[in-house]
Amino acid sequence: MAEAPIHATILFSAPDRPGLVARLSGFFYELGLNILSATNYTDVHGDRGARFFMRIVVDLAGLASPTAHARLGDSATRSTMATAFGERIATPLQGEWSIGYSDHVARVAVLVTKDPTCLYDLALRQKQGELPCELALVVSNHAALEPVAQAFRLPFYALPVTADSKKDQEKRVLELVRKHDVELVVLARYMQILSDEFLRDAPPVINIHHGFLPAFQGAKPYHQAHSRGVKLIGATAHYATKDLDEGPIIEQDVERIDHAMGPDELVRVGRDVERVVLARAVRAHLQRRVIVEGRRTFVL
Amino acid sequence: MAEAPIHATILFSAPDRPGLVARLSGFFYELGLNILSATNYTDVHGDRGARFFMRIVVDLAGLASPTAHARLGDSATRSTMATAFGERIATPLQGEWSIGYSDHVARVAVLVTKDPTCLYDLALRQKQGELPCELALVVSNHAALEPVAQAFRLPFYALPVTADSKKDQEKRVLELVRKHDVELVVLARYMQILSDEFLRDAPPVINIHHGFLPAFQGAKPYHQAHSRGVKLIGATAHYATKDLDEGPIIEQDVERIDHAMGPDELVRVGRDVERVVLARAVRAHLQRRVIVEGRRTFVL
Amino acid sequence: MAEAPIHATILFSAPDRPGLVARLSGFFYELGLNILSATNYTDVHGDRGARFFMRIVVDLAGLASPTAHARLGDSATRSTMATAFGERIATPLQGEWSIGYSDHVARVAVLVTKDPTCLYDLALRQKQGELPCELALVVSNHAALEPVAQAFRLPFYALPVTADSKKDQEKRVLELVRKHDVELVVLARYMQILSDEFLRDAPPVINIHHGFLPAFQGAKPYHQAHSRGVKLIGATAHYATKDLDEGPIIEQDVERIDHAMGPDELVRVGRDVERVVLARAVRAHLQRRVIVEGRRTFVL
Amino acid sequence: MAEAPIHATILFSAPDRPGLVARLSGFFYELGLNILSATNYTDVHGDRGARFFMRIVVDLAGLASPTAHARLGDSATRSTMATAFGERIATPLQGEWSIGYSDHVARVAVLVTKDPTCLYDLALRQKQGELPCELALVVSNHAALEPVAQAFRLPFYALPVTADSKKDQEKRVLELVRKHDVELVVLARYMQILSDEFLRDAPPVINIHHGFLPAFQGAKPYHQAHSRGVKLIGATAHYATKDLDEGPIIEQDVERIDHAMGPDELVRVGRDVERVVLARAVRAHLQRRVIVEGRRTFVL
Repeated sequence: MAEAPIHATILFSAPDRPGLVARLSGFFYELGLNILSATNYTDVHGDRGARFFMRIVVDLAGLASPTAHARLGDSATRSTMATAFGERIATPLQGEWSIGYSDHVARVAVLVTKDPTCLYDLALRQKQGELPCELALVVSNHAALEPVAQAFRLPFYALPVTADSKKDQEKRVLELVRKHDVELVVLARYMQILSDEFLRDAPPVINIHHGFLPAFQGAKPYHQAHSRGVKLIGATAHYATKDLDEGPIIEQDVERIDHAMGPDELVRVGRDVERVVLARAVRAHLQRRVIVEGRRTFVL
Repeated sequence: MAEAPIHATILFSAPDRPGLVARLSGFFYELGLNILSATNYTDVHGDRGARFFMRIVVDLAGLASPTAHARLGDSATRSTMATAFGERIATPLQGEWSIGYSDHVARVAVLVTKDPTCLYDLALRQKQGELPCELALVVSNHAALEPVAQAFRLPFYALPVTADSKKDQEKRVLELVRKHDVELVVLARYMQILSDEFLRDAPPVINIHHGFLPAFQGAKPYHQAHSRGVKLIGATAHYATKDLDEGPIIEQDVERIDHAMGPDELVRVGRDVERVVLARAVRAHLQRRVIVEGRRTFVL
Repeated sequence: MAEAPIHATILFSAPDRPGLVARLSGFFYELGLNILSATNYTDVHGDRGARFFMRIVVDLAGLASPTAHARLGDSATRSTMATAFGERIATPLQGEWSIGYSDHVARVAVLVTKDPTCLYDLALRQKQGELPCELALVVSNHAALEPVAQAFRLPFYALPVTADSKKDQEKRVLELVRKHDVELVVLARYMQILSDEFLRDAPPVINIHHGFLPAFQGAKPYHQAHSRGVKLIGATAHYATKDLDEGPIIEQDVERIDHAMGPDELVRVGRDVERVVLARAVRAHLQRRVIVEGRRTFVL
Repeated sequence: MAEAPIHATILFSAPDRPGLVARLSGFFYELGLNILSATNYTDVHGDRGARFFMRIVVDLAGLASPTAHARLGDSATRSTMATAFGERIATPLQGEWSIGYSDHVARVAVLVTKDPTCLYDLALRQKQGELPCELALVVSNHAALEPVAQAFRLPFYALPVTADSKKDQEKRVLELVRKHDVELVVLARYMQILSDEFLRDAPPVINIHHGFLPAFQGAKPYHQAHSRGVKLIGATAHYATKDLDEGPIIEQDVERIDHAMGPDELVRVGRDVERVVLARAVRAHLQRRVIVEGRRTFVL
């Protein structure tokens, strides 16, 4: 895997029309950039009418080719390529798009409270190369997990919060996020509800909810699940939005339980689902596989 | 399997107290009846305080033994055994209980509308010996599935229903249920809501809901699931109660879906989950494994 | 779904090299054919070196366009398009490819013995529109399932087989397959081993093996599984090759079992897995999603 | 959970005969010990004929009762109870049995090499109270995981091994196991094959194999799985016996993979299955739920 070429990943969506695959493929082909993988999908069930979604991964080595120079001018760079893509492809097609580069390592902030399971899991996966990112810092409203952060040599900031200090605390969290150039915030069992202002000003935020949304929203989902007598419990990773537990779902999974399990046992079983679901969602986001469309996501 | 001894299955629940396993086991031992299997569980999370649940299966051959006669009197029969269990064990312990016999074949009514999947599935499983019951009749508000019933040689009754005729139609369904000595009604995608009166007067009713309850209650759960962008769809088999989709859950399962699936595809994927979940629930009920406690079930 | 455009699906593989996505997309774009969906994958782990696999679905409406005529000559037809694809794209790239059309309904033969589960399942799915094919005939070495075939109005041929008559019987099966223009043979629990000659002369054959291959090859896999004490049992759908149970796997799944289940119970649980796995494999084949590469398949 | 009574768990198996449930229940009842839970199962498929298996959990508070004293003599202790159970119940019934006490905390040794995933997982679960044991020490043939052990304050012993030193190294491991009163050895991705002598002299050993046994025995199971083109990969936790990868299976699970995953990706996906399967097996063993019978286990 080490010798994988440096590549760019483009996520693109636009109103559907004939010729989109060929036009997008053609753009990169004419630049001399090899397409490493391409996936597309046309959704006809959304609110915006038939809509085309595509993920393209291209080998950036081609930027050094004469072809690229011919097409982009002397400065055949990522930047001129991106500009050209915007001008020649996306804008005429009314497309929404983003681009990322494989040698850019995203910086991630992990917000936690007391439960160490997801933090251990993310830190270990990052260390093992499963998550293409750097864990820039861990922020908590509690000091309990500082030793975990230390064991993985991650900067740890304890920022306690009370009803009165909530606004200030969020401001400080946001300052840390900015200071550390964070591009993704992961709520790894952070037991605080973030304000609309925070969510508006922060980079994308992924939350893990320990219930199978849309069932069991709000607090104590395992107790709700136990009391309702469900036979499976689940976890849901979603982008945080101002409507709590209503954000676009990235990943979900469930585990079978039985009647002999009280709420405490559900917590135990649930932890296994939570950490796996959160890790899959963070990984998909970092691999630039997730396109949000209204309340839904497409994971390409 | 043919030579399995004739057995009785007792489901029992009572306020928890010391000695219950031994007292129940001892009752049958002293009668000379071998216990083929026994499972118990004490639930401390319910509304009624700590409560003991037990399922015991005993070999009825012992009823012919001198011991049984000594204890039950000359007429050591199922009936005198059951009476003695009630008087000597259940009543003193404030227990709730039921008893069933393996050579008694329960008669089941299947209610359907147009979707044949669950009907085929139940009929085939019954024929293959997976469901210890007789399918006594199929009732539908529509004629579409008559050929399916005929292929399995099951009596079929088409009883169309309109808003005006609903009360009458339910009455006729209930008459059929009684006439055919039905002990269990299975709603195998029956697209009608049963009235409180029907549910009060009918034997137990198991319904399959094509959603992962408590999410996606009501109509069109697959459309709801698609619109919410969930990553798994499910099905739930539950006892029908007057609170629609709120009855005690017997079994649930889910299947992974992806963004490329529109509501129609969810219907297709969902059918596979529905039929399996319904069959497992019906089988558990017929094997006398299900104890209802409030809104929950214990499947022992 | 009824108004889905008539489309062609191309499966293509070739030694990997730059520009393949764009060249294949470009070919159809220049003809004026819209690409409905495209997926590609480069495998670097196979025996033939880095290899490129692609599935493209194109809207055939474009064949009526002036562009198509300009490029293909007056006769812009499926046939000239396919020829052009072969000559201009596949041959120069040393590609292997196939093409299929959505208004061509594949004819399928189902071979069975006595177990009705998979036959019911395939017949019902075909009727419900899940399998894009026609079930042309059912062939069995036994008469038991004739009523099932009749219930679905499928031609049924009983061709009993003994050790002596095996060669003759296979010849007759093959004649039926040819006479009915069958393009896919499905072994839906056909309890006979097909000869190398049959497999050489027949269209593709998909078999369902009631074990998690490569474990539990050969006869009585559930008994093997029980005796080994595994905790999950599985089923495997694969293309039949002359090496029994060694053909390329198309789909697999498993189900949890417990110690209380004897071999008979494993058969019961296994049936649910078998039918689902077989149906998924047949569906993927008919949707032209499966590319065989050595002992592996790519399901795009 | 903290106020759970101190209890004893008895695992018992014997040739099947009438009256076993009642006799075992009766023994404890007559002593005045409440049965907290009881599960039994009769296996008719094993090599030793019909055999009865039972797990009973009893509340030890009853040992202080006059009844216990009357039956066991003045010294109504765990020891006299166990002796009485052996003499009065197990021996006459030719039973095999074991007993454990909930206030006895088993000491576990974890053997590792370089892969930290299972070690982190076990250490974290132990800390969170999921595993009723103490992790007495970590032994490795390599120094890599010492920091992980330190982070959890677990004694760590690096005992490198070569072909020549294998016998000596095993001897030293065994000495550590004895010195630390270890009752269970867990091979958490320990990349050494243990000798028959070690296995003979050591306490029970649980191994995690990163393949779905009996498929993919031996080294590099993920590479085998990739090369065979399976669609699911698995992991198997089993008791280690002198026949490598042939020991009785305690737990297994699988995860779906797709064609786009090379062997490296299978390793990543597999790690999630391995750690969960190993943890479930260790937990079941520690909760005294596992009875070994030949090559199979019963997990009651």
